[in-house]
This record gives sequence, C-alpha cells and structure tokens, in this order.
Amino acid sequence: MGENVGAAARAMKNFGLSELVLIAPKFEWPNDRAQMLASGAADILENTRVCSNATEALAPFNLVLATTARDRDILKEIHTPEAAALRLRTAAQAGARTAILFGGERAGLDNDEMSLCDAVITIPTAEFSSLNLGQAVLLLGYEWLKSADRTPAIRTRQTIAVPATRTELTGLFEHLERELDVAQFFFPPAKRETMVRNIRAMIMRSGLSDQEARTIRGMIVALVRNKYRGQKKE
Amino acid sequence: MGENVGAAARAMKNFGLSELVLIAPKFEWPNDRAQMLASGAADILENTRVCSNATEALAPFNLVLATTARDRDILKEIHTPEAAALRLRTAAQAGARTAILFGGERAGLDNDEMSLCDAVITIPTAEFSSLNLGQAVLLLGYEWLKSADRTPAIRTRQTIAVPATRTELTGLFEHLERELDVAQFFFPPAKRETMVRNIRAMIMRSGLSDQEARTIRGMIVALVRNKYRGQKKE
Repeated sequence: MGENVGAAARAMKNFGLSELVLIAPKFEWPNDRAQMLASGAADILENTRVCSNATEALAPFNLVLATTARDRDILKEIHTPEAAALRLRTAAQAGARTAILFGGERAGLDNDEMSLCDAVITIPTAEFSSLNLGQAVLLLGYEWLKSADRTPAIRTRQTIAVPATRTELTGLFEHLERELDVAQFFFPPAKRETMVRNIRAMIMRSGLSDQEARTIRGMIVALVRNKYRGQKKE
Repeated sequence: MGENVGAAARAMKNFGLSELVLIAPKFEWPNDRAQMLASGAADILENTRVCSNATEALAPFNLVLATTARDRDILKEIHTPEAAALRLRTAAQAGARTAILFGGERAGLDNDEMSLCDAVITIPTAEFSSLNLGQAVLLLGYEWLKSADRTPAIRTRQTIAVPATRTELTGLFEHLERELDVAQFFFPPAKRETMVRNIRAMIMRSGLSDQEARTIRGMIVALVRNKYRGQKKE
C-alpha cells in the first residue's frame, strides 16, 4: 500500500537513509497516500526509482541483504538486524554500494529476488510476529544509524557533567554527620561507623555537582533551624 | 490519537510486552481506531489501565525510564535505547517492576512526570527526527526483546549447518584441478600454485555441505563431457 511506502520513507529519513527503489508497485506512483504519510520526507519520494523487477532494481549494488518474515527454507546466512547493519556499514565504508531488500507484506520475497541477495535478515520477535513494511524499515534504519552512532550508552547533561570536588563532598558529609550527632540519630553508638559509611555511599551514588552539594547543605541548615525554633517555642 | 495507541499495542505484542497504561488520554476509551490498528493485540487493549495522572500510573513501579524526543534541560542520566533495555531487564530479573514512560507527541513529558523517572531514554536519529508514539514503542520494545534474545548474530539453516568433510573437499579440489590441468587453464605454469590456493580459498568461503560439494563435482563432470562431445563433433 502507498501508506506503507510513505511510512517507510519517513522512517528512512529519521535514520539518514535516502535512496528508495520500488519494485513493480501494485499502486499508482506517484501516490497521494504515500505523500501524506511521508510528511517531512517528501524529497525521498521525489527521488524514488521505480523498477519492474528485482534484477533491474538491484543491478547497481555490490551487497544486498534481504529481510524475511520468518524461518523459511533459506540456504543463506541469516543475520540479526544488528549484524546486518554492521556488515552493510563495513562494506559501504570499503566503497561498496549496499541495499536492503524488503519483501511485499503478503508474499514476501520470491525465489528470483532471494537468489540475488547475499544473505538474509530476520528481525527477532516474540511468538506474535506482525511487522508491516514501515516498521521493518524503521528497525533496520535504526540499526543502520546505530552502527555508526557514537552516543555513549549512558550520559548526562553538561550542566551536571562536572561532579563536586572531594572538598565539597567532605564538607557535606561532615556537616550532615555533625548535625545527626547533635540529633542523636546514630543509635546504638556502636553502629555509627557502619551507618555513616552507608549514608556516604548513598550520597555518592547520586553523583552530585558542587551546586547540588551546597543545596543539600542549605537544606540541612534550614531543617536544623526549624527544629531549634520548634524547641524554643515549647 | 487512538490510532497511535493501537499501533503501540501491536508493537508491544511483537516484542513480548503486555501491560499498557494510559495517562489522561485526550480521546474516548475504549477507542475504535485503536482497536483497528491493534489487530492481533486486542488483549493488550482490553487489559489497558487508564489513569488520570502520572503519579497514579507510576505508583506500582520500582524503576521508570522516560523517553524524550530531544535534548532538553534534563538533569538525569540519558540512556540509549539499548542501555535502557539492559537496565530495565536487569532490574526486572532482580524482582523490580519496571516501566517505560512515553510522552505525548506534542508536549512530551511535563516536569511532574519527569520527576518520577529514574532516567531518560533518547532514541538516536539523524538530523530529521520525527518518530510517533507507535514508532518509539516499536524501537524500545525491540531493544527490550533483544536484551534477552540469544539468537546468534549470524546463523545458517540446519540443512547447511553441517559443512562438508575434509575428504569431500579434498576430492572436489583435486577433481577440479585435474580437469583444469587437462584444459591448460593454469598459465603461466609458474603461477599454478598461487592460482590453486586462490581457487581453494574461494570455494572454502562458501562453506559447502557434502551434498553441495558433490553437486559441484557433478557440474565439473557435465561441463567436461560436453566439451569432449563438442570436440568429437568437429
């Protein structure tokens, strides 16, 4: 359906892919429904090549991997999307023109198409498996971008990227423990050392900035002040 | 929109997720458009919980990661989808109830919602970034399933999983080289050794089964026979 081609174009654009080739589409082309769904990726649809068969479509490519819905009698290597993306990326970096071939949603790929592919890609799913063209393109495009993406697995904003100096942290620890001593929080006294260690570890886990360490000290001051006021009123 | 919730449910089902909670939906619930798009995932919609705010929705969870469209002024750790899936999976295996919070498509997450999240997830995209709810759920669901998926990166069908014995391969090599010698293929003779080594390496790369090695020997026999016949006719 045209809608799925539009969704596929939009998925491609999200992940930096630009060249779309249609093989013997069963709908009109250009296609209004595709335009609607492609919002923002109209340039991809404008440059879309339409071919009458796979041989023509795949002619210029050096490496072609084909997605297939599920286990079939395939005498080819089967890649995960991640492994496929890595193989495509490596080949592209060596100068190869690479392509991913997606089958029609009902029929999948026919034998002629399959015979032109170097290997096959299967998207891992749960028992229920029902991905349309747009979704398959989205997942492969995502893995393609990921294969060159250097974003650290876990990062923080620049604004909290500079953790507190050890001086600030020591100041906070000692301030807190001093007030907790005054409040007779550590009980029994024999457990003080362990309790202090646990509290310090808990604070360290939050990776405080200088500003945040100062904020906590301000909170301690405020809490203590209120307590003394309360006591004075009694 | 209801459609996006239906697409999200279907995406979830593909990757083994089942519990969907809606926070203050701006459409009727149950929703006909959601039902239509969820084809095959109706059970997820039937069990969908509707809450009036994030505090109520997130109450039972021990670990909550929130997706956010793009860099904002976030004072939390930002995970890639892969790192997020691993963190969620690890926590779930340790007995935690875990959730992913998706923002509304326009407004994203508000500050109250954000304050209840342990960390944030950002999906890497190209400069053009326009993923709807169904697509975001699809990508996170995919990473969730991947985090426990043991499918080898590259595998082959059982039918070609047993490579040819070395006897079969040696037989093939010697058969081919004998016929190539007869045909005076190796020229100049001084290069024979190198050419043989390259041809053997090329054959080895295809990881032949016994049956395939025999098929190639049959092809050699057939090609040679035709050639001799041709010669006899002359």
